[in-house]
Amino acid sequence: MRNRVCELFSIRYPIIQGGMVWCSGWELASAVSNAGGLGLIGSGSMEPEVLRYHIKKTKEATDKPFGVNVPLIYSHIEDIIRVIIEEKIKIIVTSAGNPLLYTRMLKENGIKVAHVVSNIKSAKKCEEAGVDAIICEGVEAGGHNGKEETTTMVLIPLIRENTSLPIIAAGGIFSGRSMLAAIALGADAVQIGSRFAVSKESSASIKYKERIIESNEGEAILAFRKISPVRMLKNKYAEEILNAENNGLSKDEILKIKGKNRTKFGIFDGDLDEGELEIGQVAALIKKIEIVEIIINEIITDYNNAIKSLQIINP
Amino acid sequence: MRNRVCELFSIRYPIIQGGMVWCSGWELASAVSNAGGLGLIGSGSMEPEVLRYHIKKTKEATDKPFGVNVPLIYSHIEDIIRVIIEEKIKIIVTSAGNPLLYTRMLKENGIKVAHVVSNIKSAKKCEEAGVDAIICEGVEAGGHNGKEETTTMVLIPLIRENTSLPIIAAGGIFSGRSMLAAIALGADAVQIGSRFAVSKESSASIKYKERIIESNEGEAILAFRKISPVRMLKNKYAEEILNAENNGLSKDEILKIKGKNRTKFGIFDGDLDEGELEIGQVAALIKKIEIVEIIINEIITDYNNAIKSLQIINP
Repeated sequence: MRNRVCELFSIRYPIIQGGMVWCSGWELASAVSNAGGLGLIGSGSMEPEVLRYHIKKTKEATDKPFGVNVPLIYSHIEDIIRVIIEEKIKIIVTSAGNPLLYTRMLKENGIKVAHVVSNIKSAKKCEEAGVDAIICEGVEAGGHNGKEETTTMVLIPLIRENTSLPIIAAGGIFSGRSMLAAIALGADAVQIGSRFAVSKESSASIKYKERIIESNEGEAILAFRKISPVRMLKNKYAEEILNAENNGLSKDEILKIKGKNRTKFGIFDGDLDEGELEIGQVAALIKKIEIVEIIINEIITDYNNAIKSLQIINP
Repeated sequence: MRNRVCELFSIRYPIIQGGMVWCSGWELASAVSNAGGLGLIGSGSMEPEVLRYHIKKTKEATDKPFGVNVPLIYSHIEDIIRVIIEEKIKIIVTSAGNPLLYTRMLKENGIKVAHVVSNIKSAKKCEEAGVDAIICEGVEAGGHNGKEETTTMVLIPLIRENTSLPIIAAGGIFSGRSMLAAIALGADAVQIGSRFAVSKESSASIKYKERIIESNEGEAILAFRKISPVRMLKNKYAEEILNAENNGLSKDEILKIKGKNRTKFGIFDGDLDEGELEIGQVAALIKKIEIVEIIINEIITDYNNAIKSLQIINP
């Protein structure tokens, strides 16, 4: 099989792991890479030297390609990028910022760059910046989302007709069948976040993982719609934000309720009431904590079986 | 090819036309049925005797199966159902209400019943009511949506694992590739609304159709989130509703701004400022006003081509 994204990253399967805050340390990244996908260290929750530690550990744990996810709005961004270059990382996924800022410099350092987008304008900016691939994330995804709230079902064809760049679909993808749906829509590969966030190798708190496993449809809600939308599980904290929004509170008042370190409280410390439990709508479909290798093998098997079950329609 | 939904309705292609208010008169319903799909008359914008007229005209215009879409919360519901039985209609799609109310009586009159759902609870209720198929509608769809805001990408696998009923996927589906995505996710067939709403045979105003054609990503927004979510194109009226919601106005105050007949103003009369321009997120993907036969033939051709382009992954 020829696949542009597999060739770009020298990986076996067109499955990229979302580089999620507080979930994606060296254990998760190396497990995904060892199983044939592209593992990503999520630098968004790391100090620069903590990132260096995770890079070194990942190198020890796998001889397969892996990368680092870097939110460009991060306060330590210059130091994070310095560490990445010093450690000779070959793949970066950037998000939440302008791809024009660092792409050229990263590519001059021999690094492949993918950038996360949720609308056509950003996809066009990625072309201009010279990124190698774009991750197109629908609003069903966990964590930060685009203000347009375009779903994966609509976003992938929309971006496909506006760029020839390789597309990695994200948002709502957790199984071989949903991977097939994304490919059918025009994606070259998929990024899977939530399912890996609750995998055995994720560094998230066991309380967070168990809460996700137990969650039902409609619980992974979108908050901060007017500021910068974030999908998270409904809990005491999320209800406070939603109420503030429904009561017409100002941006500043809402951000004051949020305060700091909510994702650490929720995902890493397992504070199920006061923490921000970022997760995608697929939370309702995830039934158990599994090891990464089993997840990836199941996805590939189901993907192939689903293709075989499709029937041509007599015109 | 064997397909449960094609067999159920005795149709050639697994494509159901959404029974949309102010769009779906006899011209659209008969065109879809003549092209091999299931045409539906949208009774939601019709007085009972107007519905009878459209049924009679559809019978003259096609010898293929067609049906009627009935919102169960409609004020003339008893009269609408009387007309449907008198006119010996064989297929009904019910929505926006409790399927337990009429399904048994309709089936005793030899009518096949499909019901629109957007969550597991309603799907289970459909099983209990004995409906023949369910239409599972993701939040990217135009018009009325479920409060859970589950997208098609997540809703179809979620409902698939909770019922063995035939599933017709709706929301975000406009092309052969998106139909393939829906089938990959576990649907048996698809319902297409927005693309038919702007077809030549739709009875919507040409101004409405042209406005949809020109629309861009992010314009088909969700209003009335806290009351009963409705997807529509952003315009003066929609902005008024969104502002009211953001300013924390009460349900009664918001419904007062809405007033009456907004969908007629928008879709039928073509009042682009004051009307409710209901449409799905696929609005951004629809580029021209086409005749139904061309739309359906293109979808089937693209569906088949997309299947042929899929590649098995070497495990």
